[in-house]
Amino acid sequence: MKKGVMRPGHIQIRVLDMDEALKHYRDLLGLIEMDRDDQGRVYLKGWTEVDKFSVVLRESDTPGMDFTGYKCVSEAVVDQLREELIAFGCQLEDIPAGELKGCGRRVRFDSPTGHHFEIYATKEQTGKWGLSPTNPEAWPRGLTGIKATRFDHCLLYGDDLDGTLKLFTEVLGFDLAEQVLDENNTRVAQFLTASMKAHDVAFIKHPEKNKFHHASFYLETWEDVLRAADLISMTDTSIDIGPTRHGLTHGKTIYFFDPSGNRSEVFCGGDYHYPDHEPVTWTTDSLGKAIFYHDRQLNERFLTALT
Amino acid sequence: MKKGVMRPGHIQIRVLDMDEALKHYRDLLGLIEMDRDDQGRVYLKGWTEVDKFSVVLRESDTPGMDFTGYKCVSEAVVDQLREELIAFGCQLEDIPAGELKGCGRRVRFDSPTGHHFEIYATKEQTGKWGLSPTNPEAWPRGLTGIKATRFDHCLLYGDDLDGTLKLFTEVLGFDLAEQVLDENNTRVAQFLTASMKAHDVAFIKHPEKNKFHHASFYLETWEDVLRAADLISMTDTSIDIGPTRHGLTHGKTIYFFDPSGNRSEVFCGGDYHYPDHEPVTWTTDSLGKAIFYHDRQLNERFLTALT
Amino acid sequence: MKKGVMRPGHIQIRVLDMDEALKHYRDLLGLIEMDRDDQGRVYLKGWTEVDKFSVVLRESDTPGMDFTGYKCVSEAVVDQLREELIAFGCQLEDIPAGELKGCGRRVRFDSPTGHHFEIYATKEQTGKWGLSPTNPEAWPRGLTGIKATRFDHCLLYGDDLDGTLKLFTEVLGFDLAEQVLDENNTRVAQFLTASMKAHDVAFIKHPEKNKFHHASFYLETWEDVLRAADLISMTDTSIDIGPTRHGLTHGKTIYFFDPSGNRSEVFCGGDYHYPDHEPVTWTTDSLGKAIFYHDRQLNERFLTALT
Amino acid sequence: MKKGVMRPGHIQIRVLDMDEALKHYRDLLGLIEMDRDDQGRVYLKGWTEVDKFSVVLRESDTPGMDFTGYKCVSEAVVDQLREELIAFGCQLEDIPAGELKGCGRRVRFDSPTGHHFEIYATKEQTGKWGLSPTNPEAWPRGLTGIKATRFDHCLLYGDDLDGTLKLFTEVLGFDLAEQVLDENNTRVAQFLTASMKAHDVAFIKHPEKNKFHHASFYLETWEDVLRAADLISMTDTSIDIGPTRHGLTHGKTIYFFDPSGNRSEVFCGGDYHYPDHEPVTWTTDSLGKAIFYHDRQLNERFLTALT
Repeated sequence: MKKGVMRPGHIQIRVLDMDEALKHYRDLLGLIEMDRDDQGRVYLKGWTEVDKFSVVLRESDTPGMDFTGYKCVSEAVVDQLREELIAFGCQLEDIPAGELKGCGRRVRFDSPTGHHFEIYATKEQTGKWGLSPTNPEAWPRGLTGIKATRFDHCLLYGDDLDGTLKLFTEVLGFDLAEQVLDENNTRVAQFLTASMKAHDVAFIKHPEKNKFHHASFYLETWEDVLRAADLISMTDTSIDIGPTRHGLTHGKTIYFFDPSGNRSEVFCGGDYHYPDHEPVTWTTDSLGKAIFYHDRQLNERFLTALT
Repeated sequence: MKKGVMRPGHIQIRVLDMDEALKHYRDLLGLIEMDRDDQGRVYLKGWTEVDKFSVVLRESDTPGMDFTGYKCVSEAVVDQLREELIAFGCQLEDIPAGELKGCGRRVRFDSPTGHHFEIYATKEQTGKWGLSPTNPEAWPRGLTGIKATRFDHCLLYGDDLDGTLKLFTEVLGFDLAEQVLDENNTRVAQFLTASMKAHDVAFIKHPEKNKFHHASFYLETWEDVLRAADLISMTDTSIDIGPTRHGLTHGKTIYFFDPSGNRSEVFCGGDYHYPDHEPVTWTTDSLGKAIFYHDRQLNERFLTALT
Repeated sequence: MKKGVMRPGHIQIRVLDMDEALKHYRDLLGLIEMDRDDQGRVYLKGWTEVDKFSVVLRESDTPGMDFTGYKCVSEAVVDQLREELIAFGCQLEDIPAGELKGCGRRVRFDSPTGHHFEIYATKEQTGKWGLSPTNPEAWPRGLTGIKATRFDHCLLYGDDLDGTLKLFTEVLGFDLAEQVLDENNTRVAQFLTASMKAHDVAFIKHPEKNKFHHASFYLETWEDVLRAADLISMTDTSIDIGPTRHGLTHGKTIYFFDPSGNRSEVFCGGDYHYPDHEPVTWTTDSLGKAIFYHDRQLNERFLTALT
Repeated sequence: MKKGVMRPGHIQIRVLDMDEALKHYRDLLGLIEMDRDDQGRVYLKGWTEVDKFSVVLRESDTPGMDFTGYKCVSEAVVDQLREELIAFGCQLEDIPAGELKGCGRRVRFDSPTGHHFEIYATKEQTGKWGLSPTNPEAWPRGLTGIKATRFDHCLLYGDDLDGTLKLFTEVLGFDLAEQVLDENNTRVAQFLTASMKAHDVAFIKHPEKNKFHHASFYLETWEDVLRAADLISMTDTSIDIGPTRHGLTHGKTIYFFDPSGNRSEVFCGGDYHYPDHEPVTWTTDSLGKAIFYHDRQLNERFLTALT
């Protein structure tokens, strides 16, 4: 948190059919439905998250990600970063408080990879779901499905990785935690963090701008990943790959698809990062192992199934 | 144990190069080398096994399984079953005590699927490896690699499943624990047990006789399966599939290959069986899920990579 | 299964208040309520058990165990063992079919430790709870609480261990799997099995006859033991000790009390046994470690809180 | 990381006998011995730590903690905080570079609880032990014992909690993540963090200044905690309590003692913290549960066994 950006605070995902989407995000992933708005958007969160919501689903004709928002420690930080985003050359849009229910004003901006991000500092805090703030139990009863604990990060595909790295590190104070370099030392994947997590956002090089690879949710244990895999099978949900481990970050993971074709990940474990850590580097001759540590080869879907 | 057959007691596997094989079975799987004989065979076991050995490696020009042996409660049982095997029509071979070091006389016989099996009742007992018989610790220190706890079962491919089922159930007292039936109710896979385990031996229908699919070793936990997967990757060992779960038996598993092309499995968990349990049935329209519960489709290798 | 006795099939436990007891056995342990009878008894089972029930609760003024019943492979075995029990000198009672709903005739007998046991061969099979017999999923959805998978064994306190060992081994075909010997080589604890499990019943030496220490239920993993511990705490249930490991059997365990003062155990893992295994021996100078492997000392409750 | 302090970077612990201490910290805990100096101090680290060392053992007549040091992002931060520490009224000592081998200059200061702390920004980086910085495997082979991954935090006992809270939050930029309040709303325990971890240092109210309760090391899983418990038993190491869970932080834990009487903890999991999170509060009427979530009562040792 070099410049006051704390964490990924929300992601807005486009889905083709809200009822079907809720079977995925609420009933299978186990996110908690927190609210709906008059646009028909549905707000959800993982049970460990203290803010009111972290996932917003919007019905649309095309799947994909509308934007991801990062929460800052103060409105003053938002003001300061707003100036720096303008100076960096971003297209800015000021979103008034209340446009997302319970969320203060947001500053939306585009990245050189063509994605939309936001910063904001104010959101209603409802506390961890199902737990008292005083003498809280270890976990709440009544969770469903995979019991995802929080929205953790997203992985995005786009063209200008260098520009986006510059934006996230120089303006927003993220660190480059992990990367993949090709034989010319060109960075083809970059994992960026504003915290101890191995990634708060990640990018993979791709000719097209503004593509969405997956939204990721955190689980506590490898046994939870197995439970997730079992539930994915029991519910006839389209699986991508897993349970397995990533080489990058060393997280233990499974990928699967929502009914609109957006990829979801649940994962646990993985490396931690501090600002004085050198970036972990993988090379493209080991790309298969970098992505899928056990199979040591990419499946075609990983590179092409994007929304 | 309806007729005195207790468990799979040993398997003899052919390997192309003994030094390479030992890197797999001893250093990676973590079996303990117990002895060698003047034929150059190497004897190994898992640490929880009280008998002297359970895996015998024999150098040969072709990989595959020579035989699997089942231990009986007494020599009288061996005598009795020997008569019944003859009556059943098996080709018998009496192997004298000492042919395998530390093992008593064995009665070898063939099955209608063309495999060779043995029964025996006497083998030197060296106790659990690294543990005292009095006040034993929870596990021994000094284990290596995957730390396989025991030889658990083998899966074999062959043609005459009905005949082999009859042999194992009527003569040897096994139960049919799990099966796959095709659309004509023909059994195309059968999992047989003489104990509480979901399988002490398994067969899959295949036009050719006497094929070996894999030898399986038991681990205690799903986290051990992950460790195994990690070690398979670290040692550049050829992986087949996993970590995943089987639908049949519901065991949690990973498949990989020894340097000779013989498939190994390590797994944990899974269903238990008692003689009054109806066989669990899977149907061929769910065969993918029966074999690989999460992916829900077979990979080609599962059906064709045999030794 | 040397003489046709398969497993502990049911236990009848006396509870002071049925509604309170159901909060424990059904809501906390996660056993499934299967039936009630006109005596007011409630029948429950773990989800993996194929027979209709395994736990029967009976309201009474005093807590404790009425009896434990062992299921045999056939009525012919029951007939045969009935004769041998008489010859051994047991007091016999023939209980007609239907006295427990869905259960065939039972032969009840007493042991030299003053406990009551039963053998029977017939019970209605309802299959694993919540799973189809064809293409069964890995586990059923809708389980509650600790999700105990099966009634596993009971531990009993009584005086005549030698006589009871003789009864269980010679008449019923059990093996002595584990034992504790004092400095005079007198057996002060004996763990007996009719299967691969480290114990299907266990006894600890105690001056008084017919005391009940605990009924034990099986969980699949150490993480399930943690979940159990968390739920025990969340429900303000009286805990005895754990999570910890036993030295004897090496199972991973937690002990706690039902509202009537009967002790429950849930555990996972532990040693397996075959008839050719020498008994595992612990000595009384290591009794603390034999019982509680990590603390290495008994708590007073373990020896005195009996029903 | 509000003011540039990243993490607990090292702790110097006094031990009565270095050889015995190394059996504990190196052979049992599994820390890696990295260096020794001409004072006879031994330097160790956990395998995931990129800096050269995190634990320094010093032979002495009395056990306890000499100091804990926090690493800052830059020397400029150290300069700035040095001024603020003076303004706060701390006693300062400037320790020249090289006093600890491989470590730059340190600024040592005392806290109102009488403990000694340090800040520094420079330490030799040797990288994660046993792993390549490029294409790193999931974990290194050759680890021993409990395989502790990193020095995580220490818990200290002392009198002036308010003053120390002020020092850590106002000068060093820590947050109050969790606390225990008594019936008068007086804080009797405070858990402070400079990161996402639930505690980077913790204090419990105690009449005497400068007491050391434990140094804590991080493990990845609950199964690792079991392995630790097993190893503690196998090595006849004095155990305090566990495996269990804390209510505070919800970490899964075990406490044990080094041969000098200093308490060690290994733990996994637990809550995460961001600067916008309200402190989690436990009340003294639930103190037992706050400390030991399953037993729900303190053992006497927790409050009195200090060094």
